Amino acid sequence: MKAITLAEYGGPEQMAWADVEDPTPGPGEVVLDVAASAVNRADLLQVQGNYPVPPGASPILGLECSGRIAALGDGVQGWTVGDEACALLAGGGYAQKVAVPAVQLLPVPDGVSLVDAGGLPEVACTVWSNVFMEGRLADGETFLVQGGSSGIGTHAIQVAKAFGARVAVTAHPDRHGFCRDLGADIVIDYHDDVAEALKKATDGHGADVILDNMGAKGLANNLSALARDGRLMIIGMQGGVKAELNIGALLAKRGHISAMGLRGRPVTGPNSKAEIVEQVREQVWPLFGAGKVRPVVFERFSMADAADAHRRLAEGGVTGKLLLLNPNA
Amino acid sequence: MKAITLAEYGGPEQMAWADVEDPTPGPGEVVLDVAASAVNRADLLQVQGNYPVPPGASPILGLECSGRIAALGDGVQGWTVGDEACALLAGGGYAQKVAVPAVQLLPVPDGVSLVDAGGLPEVACTVWSNVFMEGRLADGETFLVQGGSSGIGTHAIQVAKAFGARVAVTAHPDRHGFCRDLGADIVIDYHDDVAEALKKATDGHGADVILDNMGAKGLANNLSALARDGRLMIIGMQGGVKAELNIGALLAKRGHISAMGLRGRPVTGPNSKAEIVEQVREQVWPLFGAGKVRPVVFERFSMADAADAHRRLAEGGVTGKLLLLNPNA
Repeated sequence: MKAITLAEYGGPEQMAWADVEDPTPGPGEVVLDVAASAVNRADLLQVQGNYPVPPGASPILGLECSGRIAALGDGVQGWTVGDEACALLAGGGYAQKVAVPAVQLLPVPDGVSLVDAGGLPEVACTVWSNVFMEGRLADGETFLVQGGSSGIGTHAIQVAKAFGARVAVTAHPDRHGFCRDLGADIVIDYHDDVAEALKKATDGHGADVILDNMGAKGLANNLSALARDGRLMIIGMQGGVKAELNIGALLAKRGHISAMGLRGRPVTGPNSKAEIVEQVREQVWPLFGAGKVRPVVFERFSMADAADAHRRLAEGGVTGKLLLLNPNA
Repeated sequence: MKAITLAEYGGPEQMAWADVEDPTPGPGEVVLDVAASAVNRADLLQVQGNYPVPPGASPILGLECSGRIAALGDGVQGWTVGDEACALLAGGGYAQKVAVPAVQLLPVPDGVSLVDAGGLPEVACTVWSNVFMEGRLADGETFLVQGGSSGIGTHAIQVAKAFGARVAVTAHPDRHGFCRDLGADIVIDYHDDVAEALKKATDGHGADVILDNMGAKGLANNLSALARDGRLMIIGMQGGVKAELNIGALLAKRGHISAMGLRGRPVTGPNSKAEIVEQVREQVWPLFGAGKVRPVVFERFSMADAADAHRRLAEGGVTGKLLLLNPNA
């Protein structure tokens, strides 16, 4: 098969569409003929050598995909060769075939094309595990998503609205209308003092849950924006790794900070990918058929041109997901 | 009635046993004839002027007590004048009488004297809300309590053991035997590199839940001691307020940091004192009757001599609680 390979760590110029060995399914795994994968910011870090591949995971880029099941490993139940599915991956999505534990498969949601489903597992599992499982966002609470027009943001807005939250987002003013169309109730220019703007818009309440991709840079302002008993969920560090934490301010609010990723989680057991995928299937997938959530795709690239997609994401201004389509599917 | 009053903020020399107005029960409240209260570290901060009294709370010191119900306010159910009880207070415990919402009352546990029960509500509610409700300590997990011989520590060791955890503590070497007698499996000299010592004692696993009273000073070492998916619960800032947080280190572990107190919580509703007290009554109180948990009292003072008790706690080396007995009860 062909896959995107890396000559060495560096920039997109290191990425090539080249021949590699086909994967074979281990026990409990399936092999998918990939229809589409999608670009995540972690992929850009991986190309730079700043996102170590977890032990046992494919060294090939790609944290999610969709496709048709081509082969079943021992012990796989509930899936048949030929089934369409999408999958949360520990790696290997930028390829024509990928092996994945069956517990990380999801059906293609009602009303979604097989290709567009390739950009759903990572955002859906990230948002569900952070905002709902750990962040326990509840009906009527206020939810702030930093970067409302990103792939994560566009999905988070819709799911939070579907579960009855008041949704606030930060975004460039050019994209405020776009975020409102997806359901955002409060739109904030990310150049502003976000905590102050949010408090003004919520009668001083602030955010019960914040989903943050900035890390260090946003920490103090995020703590200021938190409501009492608020939960700050950090999923990215685009604004740096280290910041001063005012524990007194956290204690005064009975605040919580979590920083969690998906990739390093165990496949099964407590806090596993299987646990998250199962809940996403039960809680989030029906929202697609009900017309409450839809995939937000910004642009589709041939997988062979994945380097161009990486350049496009790095450039900024991408609203939604960048898909990578298997040119031979 | 008499109560401890503060001439002005400062040290224990400001505390006097003086006449004040008797409290009256508001709707949903009872008035207790106090048998005993107990000293908490927050009381020392309050004397210094460093622990603001929440709006509506008594300005009198004292976050817990035991006693007999002397009067019932409107709408109180399930309690009768003359009943013995102990109570979580927002203030007012260093007094001969105190008004408290009935939902903050607990019966005196089986096998515990009325006086000794006066030192239980604060430790029991703190440990339960942090370690179990928020920290979700589970059977078989590893729990590290910083300051194992403190009032909080002595209770936390026993309850965590009763729920099947492996318990590690930090303490002065002089008090390691004392902590082991209470059930600690692993004792660590707090002068050592605690994270390193804990990892050595747990085959590299670390702590699934940490209960910390140091705040800033312990933050980096606590993060180092956390296991994957670990939860750091900060309840005190004896080691300072501000510290550098390495978000990358937190993310690598899928770690959680919470900083929570009891005093500012609402009486009822989500995240309330009533919610915590109810769970403590159901989950923790039966452990006393079963002989799995006992009060650990270091010394009993007359409430009139509360200043001496404050000096004693500040001096260090107190193992367990300091009780303040109403001299006229």
